[in-house]
Amino acid sequence: MGTRTISIVENILDANDRIAQTNRELFDSTKTFAINFMASPGAGKTSVILRTVQYLKDRYRMAGVDGDVATTIDADRMAATGIPAVQINTGGTCHLDAVMLSGALPKLNLDETDLLIIENVGNLICPASFKLGSRLDVLIASVPEGDDKPYKYPKMYRGVQAMLLNKVDLLPYFDFDMDYFRKGVEVLNPGLSFFPVSAKTGEGLDAYIEWLTEQADSFLK
Amino acid sequence: MGTRTISIVENILDANDRIAQTNRELFDSTKTFAINFMASPGAGKTSVILRTVQYLKDRYRMAGVDGDVATTIDADRMAATGIPAVQINTGGTCHLDAVMLSGALPKLNLDETDLLIIENVGNLICPASFKLGSRLDVLIASVPEGDDKPYKYPKMYRGVQAMLLNKVDLLPYFDFDMDYFRKGVEVLNPGLSFFPVSAKTGEGLDAYIEWLTEQADSFLK
Repeated sequence: MGTRTISIVENILDANDRIAQTNRELFDSTKTFAINFMASPGAGKTSVILRTVQYLKDRYRMAGVDGDVATTIDADRMAATGIPAVQINTGGTCHLDAVMLSGALPKLNLDETDLLIIENVGNLICPASFKLGSRLDVLIASVPEGDDKPYKYPKMYRGVQAMLLNKVDLLPYFDFDMDYFRKGVEVLNPGLSFFPVSAKTGEGLDAYIEWLTEQADSFLK
Repeated sequence: MGTRTISIVENILDANDRIAQTNRELFDSTKTFAINFMASPGAGKTSVILRTVQYLKDRYRMAGVDGDVATTIDADRMAATGIPAVQINTGGTCHLDAVMLSGALPKLNLDETDLLIIENVGNLICPASFKLGSRLDVLIASVPEGDDKPYKYPKMYRGVQAMLLNKVDLLPYFDFDMDYFRKGVEVLNPGLSFFPVSAKTGEGLDAYIEWLTEQADSFLK
């Protein structure tokens, strides 16, 4: 039974990867730079995204896709910034997959979108296994989660091209060992772009935005 | 394909429920009160559990089972309190299921265990779908996660018999609307036992421990 289960899972992931490739080709053909933000529940995905929109919406034509098990709270918050936003409610599913994303894309005008922000479902495990076709995969960690998370959720930390550590304004109130955290990240993903930030106070956002702009410009040029 | 996928998922859940029932019967026959703690990554499951052990290990014979995607960090911390603890590493899987638990139980002497503490994988979604056979399912929420989590993760909030809101010592540093949070919980799970606590400062733990002792004594008597 073990073997059969694994084989089913592998088939699902193969199928997902094929659709992710199709999404990627669509983004390439429309010159859309898609970024997939992943994080634990409450790490601050939406707050970081709202900051990102605030910084970049005059520079790029932006749109958003928001994944949640239920509600349209986050897509509503994105739309309130003035960019088009689509909500994907996954029902019980604990991650976005390429098929869900592919179903949401026709609701956006990708030809007029430079930057597409994808907010994944709050979960440190399964989103790491389902490629979406995005150009960048970014993890948002946060201080209150604790410094041991790279060790406990290695696949997520291994699979991203950049990481933000959010809520650094709260470091004084937590026993968060930055060296231990960084060492865990470095072993799993050497040389990963790392940005300590506070979406609340704005601390550290400039460096993150500068890096993101370089990545986007290099794709869009 | 949609229909076939749903049917596979239902079969898996049916099979899980059967094994959960077997676990439950084993716990009943050995007079073991099993508690399944679920939470988001970093909500403080391990800290709450260590406090629980500290309060109750002279009153009950305790043991622990700890689920994580990787590492034995949490089981090591549990074992350091002097109680027997078994780690389940799920590989990529984002929740404990009844089969995993059933495989771990022979490593413990249930005949000499009054209270079995099960620490689920850090995830607000899938653990809610997989019964383990535990007598109590407890959710540990935390202030830094934000007040909108009942709305976004309804199945988890609906399926538990008690909830702790951890890290209340940090309320002054977060925009956490307690009324909004409580209203979300109340709609999903009316009359749910609710304990605001801080595992760090000890605030609120007495009420939680008193409630837990009543539940355990009523089962064990």
